[in-house]
Amino acid sequence: MKQKSASLNTLSLTLDRDSGVSLQEQIRRKIVDGIEAGLLPAGMKLPSSRALSTALSVSRNTTAGAYERLLSDGHLISRDRSGVFIREDVESLHPARVSGSASRNGAQAWRDRLTFSGDGQMQGALAPDWEKYPFPFIDGPFDRSLFPVGEWREASRSAMAVSEIDAWTHDAGDADDPMLIDELRRKVLPRRGIAARHEEILITTGAQQGLHLITELLVQSKSVIGIENPCSPELRMLLERKGARLETFSIDEDGLEFDPERLRRCALLFTSPGRQRPMGVSLSQARREKLLDLADETGLVIVEDDYQWEAGFAFSDRRALRGEPGGENTLYVATLAQPLSSAVRLGVLVAPATVIRAARTLRRITARHPALSIQRTFAHMLAMGHYATALRRVESAFANRMIALRDALNHYLPKKVSILTPQLGVTAWITGPPEMDVARFTKAAEAEGALIEPVAGYFDGDAPTNVFRLGVSSIEEEKIREGVAVIAKALRDSLAPIPPEKAPDKSKSLNGAALKEACSGATLLCKTVYGEPCTITLHRDGRMTGTAGFASEDRDTGKWWIEDGYWCRQWNEWAYGETAKFLVVVSGDRMQWLNAEGRLIDWAIIERSKAGNSKKLQNT
Amino acid sequence: MKQKSASLNTLSLTLDRDSGVSLQEQIRRKIVDGIEAGLLPAGMKLPSSRALSTALSVSRNTTAGAYERLLSDGHLISRDRSGVFIREDVESLHPARVSGSASRNGAQAWRDRLTFSGDGQMQGALAPDWEKYPFPFIDGPFDRSLFPVGEWREASRSAMAVSEIDAWTHDAGDADDPMLIDELRRKVLPRRGIAARHEEILITTGAQQGLHLITELLVQSKSVIGIENPCSPELRMLLERKGARLETFSIDEDGLEFDPERLRRCALLFTSPGRQRPMGVSLSQARREKLLDLADETGLVIVEDDYQWEAGFAFSDRRALRGEPGGENTLYVATLAQPLSSAVRLGVLVAPATVIRAARTLRRITARHPALSIQRTFAHMLAMGHYATALRRVESAFANRMIALRDALNHYLPKKVSILTPQLGVTAWITGPPEMDVARFTKAAEAEGALIEPVAGYFDGDAPTNVFRLGVSSIEEEKIREGVAVIAKALRDSLAPIPPEKAPDKSKSLNGAALKEACSGATLLCKTVYGEPCTITLHRDGRMTGTAGFASEDRDTGKWWIEDGYWCRQWNEWAYGETAKFLVVVSGDRMQWLNAEGRLIDWAIIERSKAGNSKKLQNT
Repeated sequence: MKQKSASLNTLSLTLDRDSGVSLQEQIRRKIVDGIEAGLLPAGMKLPSSRALSTALSVSRNTTAGAYERLLSDGHLISRDRSGVFIREDVESLHPARVSGSASRNGAQAWRDRLTFSGDGQMQGALAPDWEKYPFPFIDGPFDRSLFPVGEWREASRSAMAVSEIDAWTHDAGDADDPMLIDELRRKVLPRRGIAARHEEILITTGAQQGLHLITELLVQSKSVIGIENPCSPELRMLLERKGARLETFSIDEDGLEFDPERLRRCALLFTSPGRQRPMGVSLSQARREKLLDLADETGLVIVEDDYQWEAGFAFSDRRALRGEPGGENTLYVATLAQPLSSAVRLGVLVAPATVIRAARTLRRITARHPALSIQRTFAHMLAMGHYATALRRVESAFANRMIALRDALNHYLPKKVSILTPQLGVTAWITGPPEMDVARFTKAAEAEGALIEPVAGYFDGDAPTNVFRLGVSSIEEEKIREGVAVIAKALRDSLAPIPPEKAPDKSKSLNGAALKEACSGATLLCKTVYGEPCTITLHRDGRMTGTAGFASEDRDTGKWWIEDGYWCRQWNEWAYGETAKFLVVVSGDRMQWLNAEGRLIDWAIIERSKAGNSKKLQNT
Repeated sequence: MKQKSASLNTLSLTLDRDSGVSLQEQIRRKIVDGIEAGLLPAGMKLPSSRALSTALSVSRNTTAGAYERLLSDGHLISRDRSGVFIREDVESLHPARVSGSASRNGAQAWRDRLTFSGDGQMQGALAPDWEKYPFPFIDGPFDRSLFPVGEWREASRSAMAVSEIDAWTHDAGDADDPMLIDELRRKVLPRRGIAARHEEILITTGAQQGLHLITELLVQSKSVIGIENPCSPELRMLLERKGARLETFSIDEDGLEFDPERLRRCALLFTSPGRQRPMGVSLSQARREKLLDLADETGLVIVEDDYQWEAGFAFSDRRALRGEPGGENTLYVATLAQPLSSAVRLGVLVAPATVIRAARTLRRITARHPALSIQRTFAHMLAMGHYATALRRVESAFANRMIALRDALNHYLPKKVSILTPQLGVTAWITGPPEMDVARFTKAAEAEGALIEPVAGYFDGDAPTNVFRLGVSSIEEEKIREGVAVIAKALRDSLAPIPPEKAPDKSKSLNGAALKEACSGATLLCKTVYGEPCTITLHRDGRMTGTAGFASEDRDTGKWWIEDGYWCRQWNEWAYGETAKFLVVVSGDRMQWLNAEGRLIDWAIIERSKAGNSKKLQNT
């Protein structure tokens, strides 16, 4: 990346000519930033656009255009014959004085006050750095290759048309976008066999918000609530917070094990009949009918989580439980637009009008409605048929990936593992040999760059130690075979008796230019002692930045350098801010740090830049 | 609106040549709709693009372009030499059979199950039809003239750039957009005097979600919680649902009345020191210092709702309580981007890292994070300086409106009313004469087309009967004088002794062509007996559609016609589906319905189309 600096009085601008942002826009932003940061004080005179263009070696049009826009936006003012100045009253927008940063003390005092710490319950949470691993066999996010960029852009443009803006800038209180509701009623819900009236539909930010609203509305302390075991840890957290008594139902190949006696005791049953969350099996037709009959007879309220229905729907002719004859009283939640992933965050709750009415008020006081601009944009995707197109693409990609996964498992781990779910989906539920220790295996796989999903977080009580999940929603087809080979090796390694502590090969430690080259610009992935993801970037200029935590909430900066063949580092706050030095051995995707005696102290995965995307993310 | 029909075998297309949507796009959408609805079955052959262009009288390019796109999207397939067909496997996307609509019975059974009905607590809720009234003096939504359309479009385009899409399509678990966090830290929070680290910031869907998360995290059953009286009904609902014991503090001209004894008893205090919600006064400097001292001494947790800080911020040099020296332990919530209204839905929670960490997990299980595409688009608005520009526009508009409001009140209601808040804001808290009955006044004002805000919903216990609010966030400056004149008349009417039931003037009832003309195409605004808004549209073709409820959740259709000088109507479900007939008198903005004896049965406001927008909304 080439950069050019130009300094002109107090106005110092650095332009990045390789950036996707136009030079004019870069100049504009830098000046706005300067004003906001107080570097360009109110009333200050700016150089003429001609002088600035010379200093920056850009065309006069570029600087003049930037000034023109800044003037019309009110950031600058122009005075006849005397030039262009920073707006005078801009100062009132600045803080008079910024008070000291918040105290770092008192964390324990806050922890004592909290009714819910959220700590230690995040096993199921997605690590923000998953995309940086070469083989992310995880479940949930859909990889970017499936994001319908062109279609979303086009829908955005439609929603931005003058005639449309009125619709989504109108604050209609608690109402959702009527166009989206109509599209859902006509095109989406019928695919699941569901007919619903306008007043039976609430737009949510995803299935999870639907489950939250239902829990708040219908679960009381000591209510007897049926859940599946395993089930999503988020649902269990919601119910535990309400003080519900949980009645758990295990899962076999036909879905939820039907136990009429215990079901009769429940006020509500939370179930995922289409694709069990997380095992992926479907509830058999016989059990569906029995369940609906029992609900009809006893008044049991069924809450249906239509988990990942968008992935591979075309391969199933099974309707939602709510769409079955007799299923009208089922409360239905689903995430919508999953290929649009976290960019969009939409879902739907379908329930009797009385329930929707209360849920709407509750949504109002807990989160308000999902942004109408998003609702309208997604409505346009539906109207233009782009959603159907995107789903078809997703379905066919997933079908191919699942076939690739099964072929690879069959080739690399024959007779070692078995896949539960016969039908196609996004995730395979895999049982390994009885002597397997899933914790060791997970760690071993990660050391080779493969993320697999242990399942303990899904279980109430003891979880099997030889079961794990492999998801294909985030890994491209062509990487599956190599990934499974890596997993197979990790599985064999973890099954072998624990080897005596072998000293890593100190003689292979890097030196001089090779050491510098290996470290410069490297991004390293590791885990903290709390099991949280941690990413460290060694910048070429000797700076070092680190982020840790599931939400990258812990951050630090520091420096690194090379001294006598040792890699040295010092964080500002982490590791007590102390200096430390290590020998470095690079082996495959792994960087190992050894002490002077050659003993392995720590290791990390070297990020493989994935389609060139990951690097860019660092700079945002 | 001219329309052209063309029918060609089973493919029947109606194009709207006056629509903003291109003819090619219209053809595309109709075909997609036809496929989705099952009208165009899988494998059906379509007419050639040439035949279709002739039948529709459009150019060949238009039809060919539509087909091309449908082919590339996979909706159609082309077979060599035999033509274009509906895709074969499309059928699997259709519901095999749509089950009957949900039972309309059992509403009472559901109501019995609910822990929270949401009924009767919606006084503060915004009616979706507020924009249709000529004089909406309500608080909350910003009118569309203030929406920075151009700036939002530009920011959207930036967020859609190829280099950017990677950032917001990456599912980073619970993490917010780092660019938005950076912009907030640098440009937004410092305006309130707040310095916050990355891990002390959580993005929410608005202040209300912040309050919800804090309530869930820190309020237990029987916790003693301080709130202001009056305060927002949504906050009171949240606290009541948690079983908190509320300690209420009244408000005077210096803000919250400081009562150390009772404050000491509270675990938390919810307050809006910047601009009290709903009265608008600011907490005095002396009380701020006392409050922070007391919190420091007793460990009282202060939750600061920075209500409407964006409106008129430049006119105040007061910082947020969290930005005061010693305010670092205050939990701070605010809505962001209010000029972008419900389209965007963003807010921020600033709190110690320990609290943010728990709040993030709670956000995960209740609603997930706000859509990243929105977060990134708003970040670009900040980066480009558009947000500052938009806020300046808003501030200056509001300042002018408040001056216009005070001038008009002074002119039309001298000595009748007094305005509490001296400083500029968005809403005036107005005290009328002691004999005033705010319920009658509200009704009288509405009958003249003016929406004012009664304040009973904000009070815990008895509310004053002579206080109301007039907001200017939603009414343009040039309408304020006329609106206040209307309000003054309504106030005088409501103060006069109730007149003996006068028969409306039956002799003025409309007849024949005049009656038909008055009704055709009219949109009528009224209230149901539950006080919910109700909108009825009398279509020119004799159809009639109605929506009622705060979220337009109750809908019906019917027909209307004219018979012997009577206006007759029949709903499908409303009013028991019975036919009724009335004489009609139109007086100003009001339509009155009389029975044959000339007795007034009901009335409604005739919607004044506002900038031509409202009509369009009907059709979305």
